[in-house]
Amino acid sequence: MSQKLVIIDTDAGIDDAQAIMMALAAPSLQILGITCCFGNTDVDNVCQNVLLVLSVCERTQIPVFQGAAGPLVGATKAFSDHFGTDGLGDVLEDRDPKWKEKLQTEHAVNAMIRLVADHPKQVSLVALGPLTNLALAIRLDPSFQQNLKELIVMGGNMEGKGNVSLCGEFNFVMDPESAFIVLEEYLCPTRIASWEYCCRNKLEWEFFEKLINEDTPAGRFMKMVTSKCWGYSKEAMLSKRDVYFGPGFVSYDAYAVAACIDVSVVTESIDCAVRVELQGELCRGMMVLDQRNILKKKHSVSVMKTCDLTKFRQLLMASLRQPCRK
Amino acid sequence: MSQKLVIIDTDAGIDDAQAIMMALAAPSLQILGITCCFGNTDVDNVCQNVLLVLSVCERTQIPVFQGAAGPLVGATKAFSDHFGTDGLGDVLEDRDPKWKEKLQTEHAVNAMIRLVADHPKQVSLVALGPLTNLALAIRLDPSFQQNLKELIVMGGNMEGKGNVSLCGEFNFVMDPESAFIVLEEYLCPTRIASWEYCCRNKLEWEFFEKLINEDTPAGRFMKMVTSKCWGYSKEAMLSKRDVYFGPGFVSYDAYAVAACIDVSVVTESIDCAVRVELQGELCRGMMVLDQRNILKKKHSVSVMKTCDLTKFRQLLMASLRQPCRK
Amino acid sequence: MSQKLVIIDTDAGIDDAQAIMMALAAPSLQILGITCCFGNTDVDNVCQNVLLVLSVCERTQIPVFQGAAGPLVGATKAFSDHFGTDGLGDVLEDRDPKWKEKLQTEHAVNAMIRLVADHPKQVSLVALGPLTNLALAIRLDPSFQQNLKELIVMGGNMEGKGNVSLCGEFNFVMDPESAFIVLEEYLCPTRIASWEYCCRNKLEWEFFEKLINEDTPAGRFMKMVTSKCWGYSKEAMLSKRDVYFGPGFVSYDAYAVAACIDVSVVTESIDCAVRVELQGELCRGMMVLDQRNILKKKHSVSVMKTCDLTKFRQLLMASLRQPCRK
Amino acid sequence: MSQKLVIIDTDAGIDDAQAIMMALAAPSLQILGITCCFGNTDVDNVCQNVLLVLSVCERTQIPVFQGAAGPLVGATKAFSDHFGTDGLGDVLEDRDPKWKEKLQTEHAVNAMIRLVADHPKQVSLVALGPLTNLALAIRLDPSFQQNLKELIVMGGNMEGKGNVSLCGEFNFVMDPESAFIVLEEYLCPTRIASWEYCCRNKLEWEFFEKLINEDTPAGRFMKMVTSKCWGYSKEAMLSKRDVYFGPGFVSYDAYAVAACIDVSVVTESIDCAVRVELQGELCRGMMVLDQRNILKKKHSVSVMKTCDLTKFRQLLMASLRQPCRK
Repeated sequence: MSQKLVIIDTDAGIDDAQAIMMALAAPSLQILGITCCFGNTDVDNVCQNVLLVLSVCERTQIPVFQGAAGPLVGATKAFSDHFGTDGLGDVLEDRDPKWKEKLQTEHAVNAMIRLVADHPKQVSLVALGPLTNLALAIRLDPSFQQNLKELIVMGGNMEGKGNVSLCGEFNFVMDPESAFIVLEEYLCPTRIASWEYCCRNKLEWEFFEKLINEDTPAGRFMKMVTSKCWGYSKEAMLSKRDVYFGPGFVSYDAYAVAACIDVSVVTESIDCAVRVELQGELCRGMMVLDQRNILKKKHSVSVMKTCDLTKFRQLLMASLRQPCRK
Repeated sequence: MSQKLVIIDTDAGIDDAQAIMMALAAPSLQILGITCCFGNTDVDNVCQNVLLVLSVCERTQIPVFQGAAGPLVGATKAFSDHFGTDGLGDVLEDRDPKWKEKLQTEHAVNAMIRLVADHPKQVSLVALGPLTNLALAIRLDPSFQQNLKELIVMGGNMEGKGNVSLCGEFNFVMDPESAFIVLEEYLCPTRIASWEYCCRNKLEWEFFEKLINEDTPAGRFMKMVTSKCWGYSKEAMLSKRDVYFGPGFVSYDAYAVAACIDVSVVTESIDCAVRVELQGELCRGMMVLDQRNILKKKHSVSVMKTCDLTKFRQLLMASLRQPCRK
Repeated sequence: MSQKLVIIDTDAGIDDAQAIMMALAAPSLQILGITCCFGNTDVDNVCQNVLLVLSVCERTQIPVFQGAAGPLVGATKAFSDHFGTDGLGDVLEDRDPKWKEKLQTEHAVNAMIRLVADHPKQVSLVALGPLTNLALAIRLDPSFQQNLKELIVMGGNMEGKGNVSLCGEFNFVMDPESAFIVLEEYLCPTRIASWEYCCRNKLEWEFFEKLINEDTPAGRFMKMVTSKCWGYSKEAMLSKRDVYFGPGFVSYDAYAVAACIDVSVVTESIDCAVRVELQGELCRGMMVLDQRNILKKKHSVSVMKTCDLTKFRQLLMASLRQPCRK
Repeated sequence: MSQKLVIIDTDAGIDDAQAIMMALAAPSLQILGITCCFGNTDVDNVCQNVLLVLSVCERTQIPVFQGAAGPLVGATKAFSDHFGTDGLGDVLEDRDPKWKEKLQTEHAVNAMIRLVADHPKQVSLVALGPLTNLALAIRLDPSFQQNLKELIVMGGNMEGKGNVSLCGEFNFVMDPESAFIVLEEYLCPTRIASWEYCCRNKLEWEFFEKLINEDTPAGRFMKMVTSKCWGYSKEAMLSKRDVYFGPGFVSYDAYAVAACIDVSVVTESIDCAVRVELQGELCRGMMVLDQRNILKKKHSVSVMKTCDLTKFRQLLMASLRQPCRK
């Protein structure tokens, strides 16, 4: 079987790290490059985090590109502390002083455009952070999206519930204009793992314990970075976030990568047009599903609804059994 | 048992007619007055519809007051055709040419203020239309809301799903500013029957058939006004509105009156602060629940979640066994 | 010559006090009532200030009505300190403890509606504060504006320059929705004294000195209330407000009353449609002139442009020669 | 004297063509490249128009780069017909079929970044169209603006008067977000030729006649492209645009280039912070001057106020005496 060509755009982030590891572990994927975007932390940290994950998994030959440092329009919102100030749980002591040398010099946006032009209709783009790089790519090359095989996004919401704002999900709220642009102008096949999808398909804390106790380099890394992070603390989550969806842990970005590796991980979807609200004190950045076709849009996306948790658990477990030669 | 004093503010509307009949049939309620507002049709039609319902039920001694002809700010949106152009299914041939004489001369807003001042902390205000009269009342008399016993509203939404717009419910979208004002400034105990609440507690079309075949003046009236109305047509609803919640009929405003008559009709609620989004192309008029207290509001409302359908069916049946002497 | 019937709606304010005195001194005006609105200070202070001005001028038979305590939509903005916390320069020591008894019990909005209905097409309404009472009047009685003889407003702007916000004038910014409603829905003849009109027709500080040294009850009152007020201080204004229009003092509201007393005080006007911007961080509340008829509005207003300063000075001088029997 | 290094960003446009000719004719300028942006017409036409102007002036060695085809966010607004559908007065019959080959393959935004990086602190960027390329440049390279010597913009407004919308100037309204970004984030010395500046410094139609009758290749070209264009028709302008500023013709973009060639062309300026309003039906895209420093911005720009018309006429005349060897 030929491998699926993949570009991962990320704002890593512990859950991005988890998702990248899942992609690295998948024999069916060939990762052409990883593009970095601000989000869970600043873009310098994101680049370092991605390089570190590749190093832990012994896959440093995958090129890493630096991208957007802030949203398309307006000031950058405060970074979330969900995954620590540095995006990896604030437990790392020594950062690689030579990280910049390990980055590619090409800008993430130009790299995206080049890689997709080199493999027209063959690349799956998996977007795990704010969609700024994707919006810039289509502004520099309006044909960029046409040449994608597919787009898979972690972000947005489907029930009007938000995490960072009253009705907004983090990735979309960090750059609503870019989310709007991508959902209006990317006409390639598109699948979306919304916040509520991830939360409604939570896993048990017991499984989390098993997961991070995998005795491998990746497992030990994941145990370390989640060790002080409230987003991976059963107690903290009980008191803060479980108000809507009940207890459990959520590795958001992994749901998008899982859907890329194996379409059958998603057992139920809603096919409809979507749009991002750009205005409002409460609803800016909210993704809206247009199930009754009020907007008369021609392009529909697939909004994930139900996840095959057995398969998803297997992909998570596999992701921590690294490094694995490919 | 002393009766509950009630003012009904309405934009009647077939479902308002149904709801008013339910209130008229309830021995525990004493209706001090019915105030009219534009909404399902223009306010002149609303007044006539209310007078007609009172006439059918032989309760013409209840005073009816004319109120707002349009929203607080901006132009009036096109009236919904959900209940026909005249609000009562467009089947009535002869309108009473002397209807204006049967109205009170006092403006609805002044009447509200006076009636509540006469019975401080004793009046339940049940709002079945756009909240314009309620917003105006508090502007003319800031203490108005303090003197209410309670407020029960049919309107808004709780899952980001709308009926008239992508995320907006009819009553709130027709006058978002008034909905905003009422939910921010009415600090009396408040219960809300949102659109999704009504839809998630739909009744079976079989029950609807039984209901409208009640051989009483009220029953015959309801059968007549629903006869040509797509909102009460099983076939029309299957193709248009049941996309979210599955088949069934919904008599929206009746859910609010039922909650006024018997608190135990609502078996589950969410207590939280709410706010109305005023901006946006998609979300203007959307009600948002603040279950995590992000807005730091002090005032919480009770958002209805589950309905005791057995009790609700009984109240509906009783409403059509009219006139009934009290 | 028959007198012009006038209702003054005011948020007094020193310049309102000056304007009311000008109206009281005009033999050609008969003041039917003064309606009060929040604005320069809270509406309780406004009522007391108006009663005090009438008392100084020995005209206490003119009825005073309390109106809106805040804007139509949203929270009340902080009151300006332009005329002191109490609106009259914070120099008054003893307030009349029985002021409430001297007010009419009828609400300002209901009084406006009644007075205009009693004198259809005969009343000039002069609005000197936020337009909240006027917006409420048309909501309670949509025909109210048709029965006015004319409307004269102090407020708004004509060059995109603001005083309280970057592009917004105080009266309009305090309640943009009401300003919008009045300029969209009042179709009677309308004249507007914008902020820039007042500022471009400033008077000399030398004249101000002469004015407040008029040895009459009104003169002594005006000297007292302006004594500690930076808005009437040559030095303070030099450093703060004169950036746009050069030195001089501006008695804003007096320009509107002067235009009511004598149309020839305004020597040049722009006739065009106008609209108020409701949105934006910078422009909310800004009045826009549509000189090229882009909006296709049918109703034009007269935006004052040039003032006959000789006549205006005479009216100001006359206003301080009170009490004068009428 | 060493030459000033210049990049011209343009949406040519007849007035852009005029402005480019002025730059080409200036011995003190060295044009490093011309970057193209949608605006007066689509970006394909803009590229062809620029190539044509360079050809007429025999300066085809100057590299031309294609840039943004639409605004940063949202759909492209209808192009203005001010300068004809093709931007050059709709009089050209034969377009060069090989125009694409004469363009550089590098994207305008990448070219801008490269050229400025190659000459840090030495390049004057003159922006004559929507500011999309400039906004994208700073997103791809946040340090881009720091390395500019100066930025000169034709666009925006200073008195709340608009040309395409009630309060908005064409270049800014075509892409308000980009205008916002540039005015917030470009901290290099910045000068702005607003719409009102250009209009208040109109030239006489007599001079226009003289100008276009210059018997040179450039003169004949300009006479041809203005021949059917209402924007250069005395009669058309009398009826449409002269409502604000009186009769005369305005070659907008030329005012920006003139200011680049000779700072003494601008005899009076306002130094203050500016911001672009992003919201509102009336004011979206409007530039606002903050002369009282309400926004507390640290960066001020120079808003041009008065033009030395003698010098400006000389530069215009010189621009049509081409080709001139340099």
